[in-house]
Amino acid sequence: MIVVMNPGAGKEDVEKVTTKLQGMGYGVHLSTGENRTIIGVIGQRREEAAQAMEAMPEVERVVFISRPFKLAGRDFHPDDTVIEIGDVVIGGPNLVLMAGPCAVESEEQLLEVAKTIKDAGAQIFRGGAYKPRTSPYSFQGLEKTGLEYLQKVREQTGLLIVTEVMDQFTVDEVAGCADIIQVGARNMQNYYLLRELGRIRKPVLLKRGLSATIEEWLMAAEYILSGGNYEVILCERGIRTFEPYTRNTLDLSAVPLVKQLSHLPIIVDPSHGTGLAGLVPAMSRAALAAGADGLMIEVHSNPQEALSDGPQSLRPDQFAALLKELKGVALSVGRII
Amino acid sequence: MIVVMNPGAGKEDVEKVTTKLQGMGYGVHLSTGENRTIIGVIGQRREEAAQAMEAMPEVERVVFISRPFKLAGRDFHPDDTVIEIGDVVIGGPNLVLMAGPCAVESEEQLLEVAKTIKDAGAQIFRGGAYKPRTSPYSFQGLEKTGLEYLQKVREQTGLLIVTEVMDQFTVDEVAGCADIIQVGARNMQNYYLLRELGRIRKPVLLKRGLSATIEEWLMAAEYILSGGNYEVILCERGIRTFEPYTRNTLDLSAVPLVKQLSHLPIIVDPSHGTGLAGLVPAMSRAALAAGADGLMIEVHSNPQEALSDGPQSLRPDQFAALLKELKGVALSVGRII
Amino acid sequence: MIVVMNPGAGKEDVEKVTTKLQGMGYGVHLSTGENRTIIGVIGQRREEAAQAMEAMPEVERVVFISRPFKLAGRDFHPDDTVIEIGDVVIGGPNLVLMAGPCAVESEEQLLEVAKTIKDAGAQIFRGGAYKPRTSPYSFQGLEKTGLEYLQKVREQTGLLIVTEVMDQFTVDEVAGCADIIQVGARNMQNYYLLRELGRIRKPVLLKRGLSATIEEWLMAAEYILSGGNYEVILCERGIRTFEPYTRNTLDLSAVPLVKQLSHLPIIVDPSHGTGLAGLVPAMSRAALAAGADGLMIEVHSNPQEALSDGPQSLRPDQFAALLKELKGVALSVGRII
Amino acid sequence: MIVVMNPGAGKEDVEKVTTKLQGMGYGVHLSTGENRTIIGVIGQRREEAAQAMEAMPEVERVVFISRPFKLAGRDFHPDDTVIEIGDVVIGGPNLVLMAGPCAVESEEQLLEVAKTIKDAGAQIFRGGAYKPRTSPYSFQGLEKTGLEYLQKVREQTGLLIVTEVMDQFTVDEVAGCADIIQVGARNMQNYYLLRELGRIRKPVLLKRGLSATIEEWLMAAEYILSGGNYEVILCERGIRTFEPYTRNTLDLSAVPLVKQLSHLPIIVDPSHGTGLAGLVPAMSRAALAAGADGLMIEVHSNPQEALSDGPQSLRPDQFAALLKELKGVALSVGRII
Repeated sequence: MIVVMNPGAGKEDVEKVTTKLQGMGYGVHLSTGENRTIIGVIGQRREEAAQAMEAMPEVERVVFISRPFKLAGRDFHPDDTVIEIGDVVIGGPNLVLMAGPCAVESEEQLLEVAKTIKDAGAQIFRGGAYKPRTSPYSFQGLEKTGLEYLQKVREQTGLLIVTEVMDQFTVDEVAGCADIIQVGARNMQNYYLLRELGRIRKPVLLKRGLSATIEEWLMAAEYILSGGNYEVILCERGIRTFEPYTRNTLDLSAVPLVKQLSHLPIIVDPSHGTGLAGLVPAMSRAALAAGADGLMIEVHSNPQEALSDGPQSLRPDQFAALLKELKGVALSVGRII
Repeated sequence: MIVVMNPGAGKEDVEKVTTKLQGMGYGVHLSTGENRTIIGVIGQRREEAAQAMEAMPEVERVVFISRPFKLAGRDFHPDDTVIEIGDVVIGGPNLVLMAGPCAVESEEQLLEVAKTIKDAGAQIFRGGAYKPRTSPYSFQGLEKTGLEYLQKVREQTGLLIVTEVMDQFTVDEVAGCADIIQVGARNMQNYYLLRELGRIRKPVLLKRGLSATIEEWLMAAEYILSGGNYEVILCERGIRTFEPYTRNTLDLSAVPLVKQLSHLPIIVDPSHGTGLAGLVPAMSRAALAAGADGLMIEVHSNPQEALSDGPQSLRPDQFAALLKELKGVALSVGRII
Repeated sequence: MIVVMNPGAGKEDVEKVTTKLQGMGYGVHLSTGENRTIIGVIGQRREEAAQAMEAMPEVERVVFISRPFKLAGRDFHPDDTVIEIGDVVIGGPNLVLMAGPCAVESEEQLLEVAKTIKDAGAQIFRGGAYKPRTSPYSFQGLEKTGLEYLQKVREQTGLLIVTEVMDQFTVDEVAGCADIIQVGARNMQNYYLLRELGRIRKPVLLKRGLSATIEEWLMAAEYILSGGNYEVILCERGIRTFEPYTRNTLDLSAVPLVKQLSHLPIIVDPSHGTGLAGLVPAMSRAALAAGADGLMIEVHSNPQEALSDGPQSLRPDQFAALLKELKGVALSVGRII
Repeated sequence: MIVVMNPGAGKEDVEKVTTKLQGMGYGVHLSTGENRTIIGVIGQRREEAAQAMEAMPEVERVVFISRPFKLAGRDFHPDDTVIEIGDVVIGGPNLVLMAGPCAVESEEQLLEVAKTIKDAGAQIFRGGAYKPRTSPYSFQGLEKTGLEYLQKVREQTGLLIVTEVMDQFTVDEVAGCADIIQVGARNMQNYYLLRELGRIRKPVLLKRGLSATIEEWLMAAEYILSGGNYEVILCERGIRTFEPYTRNTLDLSAVPLVKQLSHLPIIVDPSHGTGLAGLVPAMSRAALAAGADGLMIEVHSNPQEALSDGPQSLRPDQFAALLKELKGVALSVGRII
């Protein structure tokens, strides 16, 4: 942490600040430039300390040197985190494919699409029983019944299940059915939920918030890790920008960047990332080429009848065709589908 | 709702789409332009219907004509909503001033600052007992104890209390202490919470999400209104943009725009909106001049010792000075402080 | 400038970097924290030096301490810049009002609207002879003929003229007619144009670029100032964000922020800033309350016949009514209209 | 074009609007829904007409149905544009690789790096003689001398040359040396320049503006095409978002989207798109997998001595290694390097 003094700060001002820092238990290191004095602060990074400094009239601003994430960062954990769930390995050379409809609508719908995506080669089934919807007048999800249907998908197909949890009080319920618990973009900074997920021992799929920086996203992971649950999978799903053609702007540079900063596996959701089924194949290929550990893709047997997100859903035959294409891309970057 | 057909769509394609629309209970109205056919769809706006249409290969896109918010909109509720809590009236000619520290830290701190802001002329005391914090290593709030301290502030000063609720399960607890229940920016799309707030009969202060459009914000209000709780106060608190100097970009144009679109009162939080105490006075003046119904301002007796958001907090003397300045601005736009 | 070394950097790495810095003429100051070494760099800030450092594999990143703008900054020029053009003073207690149509369309149109805005109390007439238009199929401006019409407005009404220059080669031509030369948002980083404007001795109105940070904007001003032309007026006109209701998001916090960072006067253009005539009055009031030195407002005698930007233009009677309202707001913040 | 009337609009209001539309030569088609009347407008899309409508108090807003770009769009030009320059073909199955330093610094530097990138397999050499720089105190480019050096690169290596033009008056000068004329991101909406480029007969590389929507970008291409120059290559180079880790956010979804909307070839610049050399390999792979027709990559013999953009430049050996990797990715999507 570095404290930048105001341009006009005199010796007394600097002393006032260093005294305060030392009172907080920090070591200090003065460096006087042509126009400014800066104070190198030695000790643990703490937001509170930084804010206290910035609230002093003598101080212009505080610059952080170290990253705020410790457990999620590579500095103290250089090796990749690899998550094993039964036969499925996430974060290794084999890529993981999650697919299924946006929302759980009925038992038949689920089983039908589940079989086709299994045949195509996916290992994990996705489907929302609890749905966050922008409008109170939209379909809001089947909730518990939806979880039961997902259970049947697992029993009948052997696919693993990933589904979204909406609050800390349904974590156990969802964990009872799901192999991976998903935190949606809108909940990325729901800290009570994150803390509860730190207490369980099931992998968590943590979607990036709509306007979350990569640092904030890794800090959300840090909440879960700091609770003792080390199995977090990150999922890039597009950020909000000024571009109106696509629902979001899929930030694929997050993939290699997260790989540099963190040891956690990262997958990409091109369906929400673009909002347009026609862009999903190209962005799936690009995600794998960028180094993603897997994909999450919306597939619906009949997108025109979907209760949610039809325009971004592939049909099962399109999904199967895409998977064939992806094998070559995976190979070209040393990965396997 | 208008369905725009693909450029090359033929008669059969149009028929396929109109048949589907009619099957959903909609009336249709064809209009054939030079290059496109468009279908005017007569009936209730529904997201699901629009998505079903957009998932058809014959369709280019769907354009909504009506606004998605009904209860929050002015079309069917032309008069301003005015909320009365005891002597305090929100949304009338008198402006409402909410002030207090970001977080509840101790009983003494609260009472000290509460008295000064009451003397200065504020009517409502703010302070967070439950705190959403980006880092798991930061101070996380006093929770229940914090609520008790807030209760004491009300008893001893007569100030009304506004404080944040973090999830649907503590709504009753918070409602037991607060006169106004705050939904924070990160929870603006926490739909379970919004629905629960629709069931109670207490005013809700709904902060705009960091990257929420005005339409999404009004739809969040719609969730509460559609549950039967008509007392929603909107609060503009800055949106996320590319500008790094300020913590957020305070979008004051939201004030007159919300006044056009909706009948709900709207206040402004220049403290979070800028993140810099030095900008709070100017932006408070600007907010009132833009037509806001009030302000929410962070005040801390000693910003350098604050456990949260010190750099954006005013000292009590600065707050008192600001209030004096604001009287003239209020008068100049026909309002009273 | 501070060089942050990589977490694993050893003594040799640090030496390599300090040697390079010293070779570039910089003084260095080491500070070794728990996990990182940082190097305080003493000497002039230079982008090239920073980039050279960041290109070294031993270096994580470079943090700038001083602001990049010198002439535009307050550090070495604490007093406000006040610009006098005849009787009109920009940056003093009196507010300046610029108004007129988006584009110059005809002589009659200009004279008609010019008289009404003069009667209303404006001092400066705006109108574009050269027009940047998104579509090649839109009206592109009257160019030289437009300048002649503006000349007539000045002769017949005594209003000062502000009009846009599009490139460095027409600077003299525009300067021959205009009292203030406007640089449009799209040209804010047209450095050849900025440099040419540094050579003349006429005030320049520098609009903020659509996605320009405040630092980039002040650096654009620095180009003009560093050429020897000290009369630069900044104009906030909205930035691009994700919000679709308004054409741009008017960033009024730029007003007090620019006042802190710089000595240059700043005005606000609520017409382009919102794109909606219905929001112009509220945002004009807010801009003045935030501390702006003036306003630039689009006025057209018949917005429905305007060749450009009709939806954001006020009619002359609306403008006159607005000016009356603004007098009180100005007074309430110690300014005069 | 569709005109949406205000909710309360009566028969007379609708007549007033239709009369005006008919007076402008448009056909109209009324459609009366439950709450609104909408008017389908038949005839050429024109911004002026839409603005005139939106300026009418009876009208809520105008919705465009057709795309504003005609020549750049696929509707009337379904086949891909393929550009041939000598042996190099852009937009066909073979991918094109452009590489070189950000700025032309010296003759030796250029020739040295040019030979290495040619050996690695690139076909086109990039280097800026005219440089847009944020700070007036930074290196501003060698200008004419730089062009002469680039000429020598072509003579001695046979590489084609792409270099930036900064204004309409140096188009001939740059065209005399370059095989492809580059329009930088900051000049994407410099309409005088675009129009001048429409008059010449040389391929133009049009970079996407920092905050340009895809529609605005294609409209910039439309300016060049409408002048008669049909050889435009688009270049995605990152857009401005709130994410601070990367210099820009590379929007790779623009690649398949542009391929749908337009027939023009599109390449990607991952160097500017990320600002970090460490991300260039992954994003180069991703760009090709997304369907880009080529890449533009910054290569410098000694990034630590570069006068511009060292941190994002690859060394020649890194570039050669990357090219080997890319061959497999290209093959996996049916393309050839």
